[in-house]
Amino acid sequence: MTLREPGIFTVDTVAGELSGAGTRYRKTLGDLEGLYEDKAAFDHLRAQRGADAVMYEVTDHKPSSDAGDMIIGVTRMIPGKVGREYFLTRGHIHAKADRPEMYYGEAGHGLMLLESPEGEVRVIEMRPRTVCYVPPFWIHRSVNVGAQDLVMTFAYPADSGQDYDIIAKAGGMRQRIVDDGAGGWTAIDNASWRPRPAALIEALYGQAA
Amino acid sequence: MTLREPGIFTVDTVAGELSGAGTRYRKTLGDLEGLYEDKAAFDHLRAQRGADAVMYEVTDHKPSSDAGDMIIGVTRMIPGKVGREYFLTRGHIHAKADRPEMYYGEAGHGLMLLESPEGEVRVIEMRPRTVCYVPPFWIHRSVNVGAQDLVMTFAYPADSGQDYDIIAKAGGMRQRIVDDGAGGWTAIDNASWRPRPAALIEALYGQAA
Repeated sequence: MTLREPGIFTVDTVAGELSGAGTRYRKTLGDLEGLYEDKAAFDHLRAQRGADAVMYEVTDHKPSSDAGDMIIGVTRMIPGKVGREYFLTRGHIHAKADRPEMYYGEAGHGLMLLESPEGEVRVIEMRPRTVCYVPPFWIHRSVNVGAQDLVMTFAYPADSGQDYDIIAKAGGMRQRIVDDGAGGWTAIDNASWRPRPAALIEALYGQAA
Repeated sequence: MTLREPGIFTVDTVAGELSGAGTRYRKTLGDLEGLYEDKAAFDHLRAQRGADAVMYEVTDHKPSSDAGDMIIGVTRMIPGKVGREYFLTRGHIHAKADRPEMYYGEAGHGLMLLESPEGEVRVIEMRPRTVCYVPPFWIHRSVNVGAQDLVMTFAYPADSGQDYDIIAKAGGMRQRIVDDGAGGWTAIDNASWRPRPAALIEALYGQAA
């Protein structure tokens, strides 16, 4: 049998990338329309920086999409705010919702914002050398609350997939991370959030059976 | 449904551990009998340090052993040699042989020594920020070729398991990592190694079907 060759990469904590990785994708300001509470501030930022401004990017090694295989990568997000709200990633639950993910802080100061299907919220502070294990079934998003790029290494099962729509359908995540007025952060309720229907929650958990 | 709580840990690169992790195991000098080529040098070292001397230890977070879940941890191995042969871990193939593993260099200078079931060998140098993706079906062992503790973070599928016996049955791994006489390392053939029977190799690959 022809085996796959070992993968050798380097985490570049300054460039914020997995050097040697095969794939890269970028999310631009235009891609993130509708995620922030302050539409006027978003439009203003987009007029300033342009819709193509890169907000975060991912470099990763995807050996396969086989069950039992793993994907490894590095994510880098720039610092800043839309109005009072800190920059964030789109966020997702895994398409196979019972798949976990590991995040590992490399540079900067961020948060892992987690939400259960029922709407329980957890906020984990990420600093260099922090490991966050995101258990199965938790929706998750990263937020950059620092003054520098937020860089994290991650690993997750290769057959996980991503479902971004679960957040949009609920009117966003239940909480937003905003400036506390003293340069720090605080979590506040998102007025647009709506609880998920019981049937949707049941369908998610049904995947574990 | 009651979800598992997110795991929050810190990689302590000096202590060489995953702070906050639930489980720890240690391998002592006595546990490693029979792995090194120079039996006299091994006996001498054991007489000096004692059979209970800790050679390497692992701290990890094992949320479950479910298919699709992940185990995360940190391994620390002390530096040194048995005769001319650098300190090593016992090594394994995964009991589910088609499961991969990720290793990530935190401190020190080591090697990931890989061997395919057919006896192909690969040697990957591990330094801080090196990521090694060990693909499915590769037997793997770490070797400390530096003067400091070798510390690595790792992640692998929670249902992988470990089969250590595959190495013992072949008379060891095909190559040994020894001092090159100038303080560096070189890989030499292990005279005791025997090729695996075709039926065993077929059984391993059969797991992927």
